[in-house]
Amino acid sequence: MKGIYFDGKDAVYRENLPMPSPSKDESLIRIFYAGICNTDREVLKGYRPDFRGVMGHEFVGVVEESSDPYWTGRRVVGELNAGCGHCIYCRTGREKHCLERKVIGMDGKDGCFGEYMTLATHLLHEVPSGLALTDALMTEPLAAALEIPQQVHIGPDMAVAIIGDGRLAYLIASVLRLSGADLTIIGKHSEKLQKFAEMGKTMLPEERQEAETFELVVEASGSPTGLELASGLVRKQGMIVLKSTYAGTVNVDMSRLVVNEVTIKGSRCGPFEPALRLLEKGLVKLHPTEFYELGDWKPAFASKAMKAGFLIYPDV
Amino acid sequence: MKGIYFDGKDAVYRENLPMPSPSKDESLIRIFYAGICNTDREVLKGYRPDFRGVMGHEFVGVVEESSDPYWTGRRVVGELNAGCGHCIYCRTGREKHCLERKVIGMDGKDGCFGEYMTLATHLLHEVPSGLALTDALMTEPLAAALEIPQQVHIGPDMAVAIIGDGRLAYLIASVLRLSGADLTIIGKHSEKLQKFAEMGKTMLPEERQEAETFELVVEASGSPTGLELASGLVRKQGMIVLKSTYAGTVNVDMSRLVVNEVTIKGSRCGPFEPALRLLEKGLVKLHPTEFYELGDWKPAFASKAMKAGFLIYPDV
Repeated sequence: MKGIYFDGKDAVYRENLPMPSPSKDESLIRIFYAGICNTDREVLKGYRPDFRGVMGHEFVGVVEESSDPYWTGRRVVGELNAGCGHCIYCRTGREKHCLERKVIGMDGKDGCFGEYMTLATHLLHEVPSGLALTDALMTEPLAAALEIPQQVHIGPDMAVAIIGDGRLAYLIASVLRLSGADLTIIGKHSEKLQKFAEMGKTMLPEERQEAETFELVVEASGSPTGLELASGLVRKQGMIVLKSTYAGTVNVDMSRLVVNEVTIKGSRCGPFEPALRLLEKGLVKLHPTEFYELGDWKPAFASKAMKAGFLIYPDV
Repeated sequence: MKGIYFDGKDAVYRENLPMPSPSKDESLIRIFYAGICNTDREVLKGYRPDFRGVMGHEFVGVVEESSDPYWTGRRVVGELNAGCGHCIYCRTGREKHCLERKVIGMDGKDGCFGEYMTLATHLLHEVPSGLALTDALMTEPLAAALEIPQQVHIGPDMAVAIIGDGRLAYLIASVLRLSGADLTIIGKHSEKLQKFAEMGKTMLPEERQEAETFELVVEASGSPTGLELASGLVRKQGMIVLKSTYAGTVNVDMSRLVVNEVTIKGSRCGPFEPALRLLEKGLVKLHPTEFYELGDWKPAFASKAMKAGFLIYPDV
């Protein structure tokens, strides 16, 4: 089959990849669309040096074979972390944190930048019949945004700031505006911020008034300087949610956080079902995706669009 | 009156300090006992270079004059942070975080290492009649320990670690053991750890097994290296509560915290009323206090006892 393979150093487009074969608890999925995540770009920069295999973890497809006959023929999205099933994390509802987990397109398991993929059947989620497949493709990144209200109670009366003006910040703003909270988006690029105008107030970091503070600050800029900015924005006894990952360490004034009783919370992958419900109801603002063929992975990865992806099965 | 005055550089014992005079919302308190907090020692090291005045913030005494006649003649303890009453923090139940707050013995307000002190009457708490005054003296540090269950839900089935073997760690262990949680105290000094033996498991950092993890880790070692140790101890999706303050910044691998969805929570002063209830019921294990006269502040501050303090009114 055709696919984009990571050989440990770079991505390679191949037309002769072996057809994957599902194990007894898995399903075989034909991929319609796949989305490029920033993490995929990080893989090319060396984020997962031990990985070898087909890249990608955001997809929508149809089940062709399954360990459970219910799924055959159904349109699906799927979660990326497959746990061992018996460690402390798997036993306490934290499969995505399993120490032995396999992660599609990143760690021990082929991903979705190919014509077919296998996945543990219990990680599948059905796409509601009325939902466009290109919208369903946003389930996984939207779930990551929904991990914030999954972790934190966001009251409708709260003053909330989002740091960042990229695609993750966009989905976070799109979710958090649904709470009724008073939203401010702080980004470095005024042209990007314009896309956020309907979701809340927007400002450049330097526009902020010193006294302006927020009960909740979501750091989604992808930059190590975001935490320092967040520390200055957050109200005492308030919370900073960190969505950005980056290489290396950051210098933090921890005593200030203790004295101000600030909470910092790391936030990663989130729940798929509420993402599908919100998508089905049309409650989430989505940015359009720019689609490429698998063979054009270079321009796809280099795309400046807020979202790029692959149209893998054109007859969908 | 007699008292220990901080002149910006050092503590000075004086016998001719002016008698404090309560303003219209304040009470005048005759101090019986006062406790030395590590923060007082930090003041001598330059933690509050702008402060001038009588030191100390842990006390028990009797009200001699008050804006509210109810209080006259009552034995009291009192909170240290006096807010402005009208800022965002004072209006939302966070007076101790008021930007304009005065802090007794530290910031803009004379403290309790003297024969008399004035305090905003609404910050007073009555000592229950059956409670020994030397035990009541522990109300403020015990309240700081109780800030942890005030901020965080601690389930009886949780695995909890406390890093530190000093006085704050002792009070935290004494409070957290009441939850029924499975407690492990990790300290560097085996002789100090012996005092914790009745409260939970004790271990030196090097004794830990790699796989040993905890849902909640309380960092109360007072050392900048405590956070790194805590990051290795905490379970994924678990929580680190920081009680230690120290000068300077710490290098933190934030991406690891994001990927593991760890929560870090700063924790400071806590609620007085539950501290008094627990003390009255005898539910909290207390270490003995070594008492000194005010004139002996040097040996008192240098004391290696887990707790040192001043007996200020010997006829109590």
